Amino acid sequence: MTNLNQESLELHKKYKGKIGISLAFEINDKKSLSLAYTPGVAEVSRVLAADKENAYEYSIKSHTVAVVSDGSAVLGLGNIGPYGALPVMEGKAALFKAFGGVDAFPICLDTQNPDEIIDIVKKISPTFGGINLEDIKAPYCFKIEDALQDLGIPVFHDDQHGTAIVVLAAIVNAAKVTGKAMNDMNIIINGAGAAGTAIAKILAFADKNKHPEMKPKNIIMCDSKGIIGKHREDIIGMYKEDFLEFTNIDNLEGGLAEAVAGTDVFIGVSKADLLTPEMVATMKSNPIVFAMANPNPEISYENAQKAKIAVFGTGRSDYPNQINNVLAFPGIFRGALRARAPQITMEMKLAAAVALAGCVEPSADRVLPDPFEKSVHNKVADAVADCMKERLI
Amino acid sequence: MTNLNQESLELHKKYKGKIGISLAFEINDKKSLSLAYTPGVAEVSRVLAADKENAYEYSIKSHTVAVVSDGSAVLGLGNIGPYGALPVMEGKAALFKAFGGVDAFPICLDTQNPDEIIDIVKKISPTFGGINLEDIKAPYCFKIEDALQDLGIPVFHDDQHGTAIVVLAAIVNAAKVTGKAMNDMNIIINGAGAAGTAIAKILAFADKNKHPEMKPKNIIMCDSKGIIGKHREDIIGMYKEDFLEFTNIDNLEGGLAEAVAGTDVFIGVSKADLLTPEMVATMKSNPIVFAMANPNPEISYENAQKAKIAVFGTGRSDYPNQINNVLAFPGIFRGALRARAPQITMEMKLAAAVALAGCVEPSADRVLPDPFEKSVHNKVADAVADCMKERLI
Repeated sequence: MTNLNQESLELHKKYKGKIGISLAFEINDKKSLSLAYTPGVAEVSRVLAADKENAYEYSIKSHTVAVVSDGSAVLGLGNIGPYGALPVMEGKAALFKAFGGVDAFPICLDTQNPDEIIDIVKKISPTFGGINLEDIKAPYCFKIEDALQDLGIPVFHDDQHGTAIVVLAAIVNAAKVTGKAMNDMNIIINGAGAAGTAIAKILAFADKNKHPEMKPKNIIMCDSKGIIGKHREDIIGMYKEDFLEFTNIDNLEGGLAEAVAGTDVFIGVSKADLLTPEMVATMKSNPIVFAMANPNPEISYENAQKAKIAVFGTGRSDYPNQINNVLAFPGIFRGALRARAPQITMEMKLAAAVALAGCVEPSADRVLPDPFEKSVHNKVADAVADCMKERLI
Repeated sequence: MTNLNQESLELHKKYKGKIGISLAFEINDKKSLSLAYTPGVAEVSRVLAADKENAYEYSIKSHTVAVVSDGSAVLGLGNIGPYGALPVMEGKAALFKAFGGVDAFPICLDTQNPDEIIDIVKKISPTFGGINLEDIKAPYCFKIEDALQDLGIPVFHDDQHGTAIVVLAAIVNAAKVTGKAMNDMNIIINGAGAAGTAIAKILAFADKNKHPEMKPKNIIMCDSKGIIGKHREDIIGMYKEDFLEFTNIDNLEGGLAEAVAGTDVFIGVSKADLLTPEMVATMKSNPIVFAMANPNPEISYENAQKAKIAVFGTGRSDYPNQINNVLAFPGIFRGALRARAPQITMEMKLAAAVALAGCVEPSADRVLPDPFEKSVHNKVADAVADCMKERLI
């Protein structure tokens, strides 16, 4: 066991987890007890029963998010169930508070049936102002998120959209660093799970959501069987079939090597060491690579250096340009809660990416800001809330 | 609107509810982030996935309780649904923290189907070390609680057992004050809902749970139609039919007046002003009355004085002897969590009542301690945890 793992275990044991409940005001005498609870609380209950919208004014709903997981796809650990998921969901809740000032609570579900998950989320929703879905495997994650979009509160699968937003911000700034225009870019996404799908969609539909400047020329998606295209009969009837509508405009066939050749940007949400220096050599000049496999990226930092990658990012904190969802989700929910948005729209996601990209003066080693810069989360929140403002006017 | 109601509304608006999430330790640099979340948290997840019992060591499970309601029987307000319930459940969570140091989170369910509630509670249980059911109407509350007793964590319907425990403690001390022996007592319980049922059961089964000294001579239960007995064909097939086994040994028939005559103790969990001074005059000498209808008791304080009630208690904080569940539930859950009890047994409930009674040197105006005396909750917790200790030896 590494020192970090041991230290993490000890910290979790010492504090019995990472979060607790705090009181908004002290309850230390008869008066405060009668205001927080009976008899005073009865009036608050009447007001909420009369109109549930009042929950935003008088209860925790306006600042509280559920972090919901079934433990079916936890980090790089796979399907380890709700107990295995608990430390991660607690951690996510802690990050919501630390970075976004959002109160979040972990809900780990002892079921992996998507219909049951949909039903439970609906029925526990009165307490919450938003739902962050987390570490739920594809394709169920798509079904669950889609089915909950009319719940009246934002439901957001962070593994998809958080990753997509941060990657998009990184591409925007990498384009500036390398002098490429996004409209001229060919982008290969290796990995067609939750994150890969969301990255493809945010790029492909940028032009339909007020950001035509962000739409690349072409997107190629690969899964473990190679390029996804019209030749792939195995994907008929799967969610991957949808990719045919907005990726691979030239009907390219082949494996990863064929997919990578001639592209400007490689995005890896797959496995360690799949991208060789030889493949990078076939990319256009000034190649951009975001290799996010955890813990070891699709191409090592050393090989990336040798291959003269112009902008290189990973999921790791010990290399430059960490693609870290914590740059997005705290501000996104904070903005959505503030604006009381019923959904987190594609427009909001694009606005969040633009705001995030705008947080730095980009250079090859700094296409994204540091999450400990507090202003980052404010800017993302403002960008998301502003979308809602425009919508209401 | 009263001043108290107005003040409570304003307080809830100012703080947007009553609770928030706190961090067990700061996350303010790369190191703490990597310990609380990836990559360090992966090891904690592995440990929990390998054995879910480890959740008690490394996660919030050991100190976290869900306060679950469907809003079907909220305070004296009735069936006002999950949004109406939210301020009360938040309040309950706040009291768990303020009095018991237990972290509790409100879960308000948008369903009143008991089978669905049972299913949802089971499926959200991984996060929690205990479930406090609250403000769920009878008879569903019985069905739901019964069905969840094998969940592996304590599931406790506070409206039933919290009330029963505090009432029992009050009776124990009222018996001392009046010089009555509980074994000689005739007790009338007016109201056969959740609280009335639990009070009857804790009294009737005291002797089977190591406390023969607490079993009264006879218990009479009344509902809105009068005395419950073998003559009541309308209760066949209902949960009230069970009462025939342990109440009304003389097969008494009639209304409340007939039920009250000759009793030592009146327990009201019903409606305002049902108990007249004339009825009290038919009770044995030194009558004991706990009139818990809210906000106005079954007999007013003034009438109770006139009727020479020896020990009088209500649900209100502005009269002596407030029967307040907050004396019981924080310590009960704290003790059960500490002992990692899989259930809160009848034995634990009796032990809690005895501990609570032992917190005061009883007098007519003080048969129960003040909930702001911190030692009370420690003593209740110790009593509950000790039951589990004995069981393990």
